[in-house]
Amino acid sequence: MASHHPIMTLDELTAFLDREFPQIHLGGRTYFVDEIGPLTARMRMDYHERHLRPGGTISGPAMMALADLALYAAILAHIGPVALAVTTSLNFNFLRKPEPRALVAHCRLLKLGKRLAVGEVSISSEGSADVVCHATGTYSIPDRR
Amino acid sequence: MASHHPIMTLDELTAFLDREFPQIHLGGRTYFVDEIGPLTARMRMDYHERHLRPGGTISGPAMMALADLALYAAILAHIGPVALAVTTSLNFNFLRKPEPRALVAHCRLLKLGKRLAVGEVSISSEGSADVVCHATGTYSIPDRR
Amino acid sequence: MASHHPIMTLDELTAFLDREFPQIHLGGRTYFVDEIGPLTARMRMDYHERHLRPGGTISGPAMMALADLALYAAILAHIGPVALAVTTSLNFNFLRKPEPRALVAHCRLLKLGKRLAVGEVSISSEGSADVVCHATGTYSIPDRR
Amino acid sequence: MASHHPIMTLDELTAFLDREFPQIHLGGRTYFVDEIGPLTARMRMDYHERHLRPGGTISGPAMMALADLALYAAILAHIGPVALAVTTSLNFNFLRKPEPRALVAHCRLLKLGKRLAVGEVSISSEGSADVVCHATGTYSIPDRR
Repeated sequence: MASHHPIMTLDELTAFLDREFPQIHLGGRTYFVDEIGPLTARMRMDYHERHLRPGGTISGPAMMALADLALYAAILAHIGPVALAVTTSLNFNFLRKPEPRALVAHCRLLKLGKRLAVGEVSISSEGSADVVCHATGTYSIPDRR
Repeated sequence: MASHHPIMTLDELTAFLDREFPQIHLGGRTYFVDEIGPLTARMRMDYHERHLRPGGTISGPAMMALADLALYAAILAHIGPVALAVTTSLNFNFLRKPEPRALVAHCRLLKLGKRLAVGEVSISSEGSADVVCHATGTYSIPDRR
Repeated sequence: MASHHPIMTLDELTAFLDREFPQIHLGGRTYFVDEIGPLTARMRMDYHERHLRPGGTISGPAMMALADLALYAAILAHIGPVALAVTTSLNFNFLRKPEPRALVAHCRLLKLGKRLAVGEVSISSEGSADVVCHATGTYSIPDRR
Repeated sequence: MASHHPIMTLDELTAFLDREFPQIHLGGRTYFVDEIGPLTARMRMDYHERHLRPGGTISGPAMMALADLALYAAILAHIGPVALAVTTSLNFNFLRKPEPRALVAHCRLLKLGKRLAVGEVSISSEGSADVVCHATGTYSIPDRR
């Protein structure tokens, strides 16, 4: 069913997300798909005060939303526009406090099955190699015919 | 260090969260601690369009934010106001699509150690027994003297 | 597809596990399904030196094997004998060191879908209410016709 | 406290594991630390019938035991021989059925903190690039003086 190579371009993927999930841009666009590759994707979340916790650090929920959206985008890029893929589980380890800067989510798909896709994400502050949050996620893929 | 009985009242806990995390009420108050008991807590998240996904369902990130906040509040209620307790890991299973209604998070603390607290949360739509999202979380507790 | 009530008896379930998974009894029978109820099951693992770590505590892998087997049995009891149900993910929190005694796994099924079943397990030492290990698991259910 | 470079050699690490965890070799030695590097380690588990499930596939619990041991060894290699480091949580995604062959666990440490170490593991069949099981784990590190 699924190839190891993306079948959507960056522009197609961005247009699909904008159309199907307009609410992620509420309050101003902060999510950007930066790159798609074989079983990989990279998404950026710009720094915005709505993502903050006191002390200037970026909130856990903001990182969780980024990880989920980035994995979802990575999967779509490889299986094509299927608005109904559904997150079934997510696991997060929070490793360091992120600085008040853009975050970058590096996704790697571990499995693209007929019914289930699984991937991992490492989130770092832009320009840093330190992982601030690591996540794995599983997504259920609807039957198609 | 930690008792099996809460040491903060509902009002004290609510006041603490309001003071330390004002940003959770951005756009209108939707989170309410409804009950605290021995190793348990219940938090409600009112229905609000900023928590939605297309189709009227409540978004995964909104449920994740609720689970994290509810567990955090449950722990604080039992160890006292420690703004620096830190989420170290979270695991989520998404079981059903929630209806466009208030969600209720039922927390149970499984461990209240000197350095680590662990709890689980079952989130249901208000008035329903079906769990829409189940989460477990671990929190690091700072040294105190 | 799945009812909230078990459709296998204790004896049928035990016979099925013995037939399909004889290797779990290698070195002597230590696993026993003790009870099945609506969306619940309880499995015991007797104390045996092959489950130990130095210091007399029961090893993490022994608890993980128990959790997986108990959840698997709980699901089978509710969907009928399907040897091909497959574990897709497991999450564990290790809360306390278990004493050198039998362990009891209390399972609760959170979802019994057509393709996916999800449950949680709390493992305690026999006769104790303290949870030593908590787990959640998801299982893929094969198509049937 | 912890360096990004291992401070134990392969031989020292193997000798430590043999001395502290003799029971992992019960029934014949199957675990071998193959390599240690900066924040990485690789462990092999040889094919043995005690790791099997019917159909010739390697059991989930055997993979979970390998992941836990490999992460534990990777952490020890970087913080020195601390027999009391304790697994606090583990998360597994099972991606494919492993073939009846040796498994190789590739570990990467994501965090080596004063109190907590976090790492991920990708397990593949020897000679294959396909990940059959992915795990993340967190380990509590005892206070030292």
